[in-house]
Amino acid sequence: MSTHVHIVGTGLIGTSIGLALTRRAYRVTLWDPSPTALGLAVDLGAGRPLSPDRAEPLGSADVPSPEPELVVVAAPPDVAGAVVARMLQRWPAAAVTDVASVKVAVLDAVRTAGADLSRYVGSHPMAGRERSGAVSARADLFDGRAWVVAPHESSRPAVVALVERMARDAGAAVRVMAPAEHDAAVAAVSHLPQVVASLVAGQLRELPAEAVEIAGQGLRDVTRIAASDPGLWTQILAGNAAAVETRLAALGEQLEAVRAALRSLQDGSGEGSLEVLARTISHGNAGHALIPGKHGAVPTAYRTVSVVVPDQPGNLARLLVDVGDIGVNLEDLRIDHGLGQPFGIAEIDVVPAAAERLGAELTQRGWRLHG
Amino acid sequence: MSTHVHIVGTGLIGTSIGLALTRRAYRVTLWDPSPTALGLAVDLGAGRPLSPDRAEPLGSADVPSPEPELVVVAAPPDVAGAVVARMLQRWPAAAVTDVASVKVAVLDAVRTAGADLSRYVGSHPMAGRERSGAVSARADLFDGRAWVVAPHESSRPAVVALVERMARDAGAAVRVMAPAEHDAAVAAVSHLPQVVASLVAGQLRELPAEAVEIAGQGLRDVTRIAASDPGLWTQILAGNAAAVETRLAALGEQLEAVRAALRSLQDGSGEGSLEVLARTISHGNAGHALIPGKHGAVPTAYRTVSVVVPDQPGNLARLLVDVGDIGVNLEDLRIDHGLGQPFGIAEIDVVPAAAERLGAELTQRGWRLHG
Repeated sequence: MSTHVHIVGTGLIGTSIGLALTRRAYRVTLWDPSPTALGLAVDLGAGRPLSPDRAEPLGSADVPSPEPELVVVAAPPDVAGAVVARMLQRWPAAAVTDVASVKVAVLDAVRTAGADLSRYVGSHPMAGRERSGAVSARADLFDGRAWVVAPHESSRPAVVALVERMARDAGAAVRVMAPAEHDAAVAAVSHLPQVVASLVAGQLRELPAEAVEIAGQGLRDVTRIAASDPGLWTQILAGNAAAVETRLAALGEQLEAVRAALRSLQDGSGEGSLEVLARTISHGNAGHALIPGKHGAVPTAYRTVSVVVPDQPGNLARLLVDVGDIGVNLEDLRIDHGLGQPFGIAEIDVVPAAAERLGAELTQRGWRLHG
Repeated sequence: MSTHVHIVGTGLIGTSIGLALTRRAYRVTLWDPSPTALGLAVDLGAGRPLSPDRAEPLGSADVPSPEPELVVVAAPPDVAGAVVARMLQRWPAAAVTDVASVKVAVLDAVRTAGADLSRYVGSHPMAGRERSGAVSARADLFDGRAWVVAPHESSRPAVVALVERMARDAGAAVRVMAPAEHDAAVAAVSHLPQVVASLVAGQLRELPAEAVEIAGQGLRDVTRIAASDPGLWTQILAGNAAAVETRLAALGEQLEAVRAALRSLQDGSGEGSLEVLARTISHGNAGHALIPGKHGAVPTAYRTVSVVVPDQPGNLARLLVDVGDIGVNLEDLRIDHGLGQPFGIAEIDVVPAAAERLGAELTQRGWRLHG
């Protein structure tokens, strides 16, 4: 018998879960307050509508037979808790999870509503993108992503196990942490970076055009996620206000120390100031080294082979054909574009043992190395 | 007659300038206080040593005949001004420039030394990397990069023109701005991003390993430059203390506004708080949109075609061969690795008009689109 999962909310995440689980032969039903969104998800093959009347308000749809084993609430963070509580009441035997980016606030809302907490466990697939809506959904959205499952003190083990199995079947790598641990973690690795990227990008609005024009790759990297959706991020930051505030407070303190050092250098007093600056950068080195590389492994010190690629169709392909012929596995690849130049630089990361041979053989094949 | 450029300081930048200008048939001489560094640069073909005695202290080398038309001081930011002043005194007819990442502090030091300011103009190639030293130098380091030339009120036009020609001949795109304008610009587009990337990465040191493990691509992007050299960056931040402090002050103020909004949401008072959060993210959207895309052009709204690439040698090459065959020009390419999965996602940016055809033809050729 295939597992019956009912998904409430057919945006990007809910529809993608439906597509991923349908692929794994789950029996998936769907519901969304927007008949258009629900219809689109059904048309995409994410599951069957729970009620024949798609416009029916939440809570009044037919009870399917049998009752779903698992209800996945893929509603916006600010309503997820209330919807979870209603689902727990509506299906008195089903396990219920949600997929919001914050976990303590959702748990608190479920608790406040007086629902049966033992059948609820929150979760969070780390798979958001800039795009949104069912139209951007895909069956492999979760492949290779972390999916945090966040049990609370009264979550039943069988409920937790069911949600973990569903997340794995959707393609994700499950990580278990308590709700408060999750919120503290995402405050540091996701919400803090979002706030600083947005603030740094926001400051560019005040600059003359020629100042922005000299920007290099560093600014592009730091501000890429500044393109994210304001509506969603307002909810996420508000829903994790305490943990984000803690991170911003730490940042503010460190910022003050750097500012004091810079002011002291201008006064000429300066003692110890250079050490503050050096420590700031070297602590950053140490933190950066902790970030897992490819496939979640501890970062290997890859070596980079940089190759000049003239900017015509097919040149990058020819380069990578040559890399493949040489038999070296490419660990990562970045394309670095020049300012006003008809070429780019392909930076190919390979294991250190392969770098020298790759460089030599590419040169033999007529490629110009860059460095 | 080829132009004679004398380069003082044979680290990454000085040696690369020597290599780039030698390629363009300039007559290049070199000097460095470290005989090892000088010898390495000479061996790499960056130029000829100015004095046969490489160990000779700065200021006592033979005057070449004829005197260099241009002296390029590629010394660390904290000594660049003093070295420029000595070069102006030593060669009473030569133009002198420096390539330090800060411009007002260097100009002030030259002025304080009482040297002939009319023959000096500062400049700054935007081409630093994480690596350093002559061994990392390359002739094409400046190709397609911005090189800021920063005339002051008494710079002679002929001197400015000579430095501009040298920068262009080294491969760079010249941008002219006043020293204070330059310092304000790099404070915003380079120094501020460096400080926040380092601080965000530094906070990761305090997290449990499992928290860092769930990090996504956003954190990787924001913190990539946190791997930069502490010694060099201490000098850069100290050398641009006032402009960096101005940027950090603005950031601190914005950070306080976000923190106040988050605290107010926790108190329950919250009025106007969501608007503060939404405005922070949407100002970031607006600033991000100002950053020039490929080749310094205004960003085109490229469309991204995402393709699943199994993680074996040659697969990415096969994909790009197909893209080339289809005849679509790849504007940018990112490789997105999954957690614990044997494949990556290639995100191919193309002009909007080509996206649909590319996706359809890749699917026909057996590629699985991701999204």
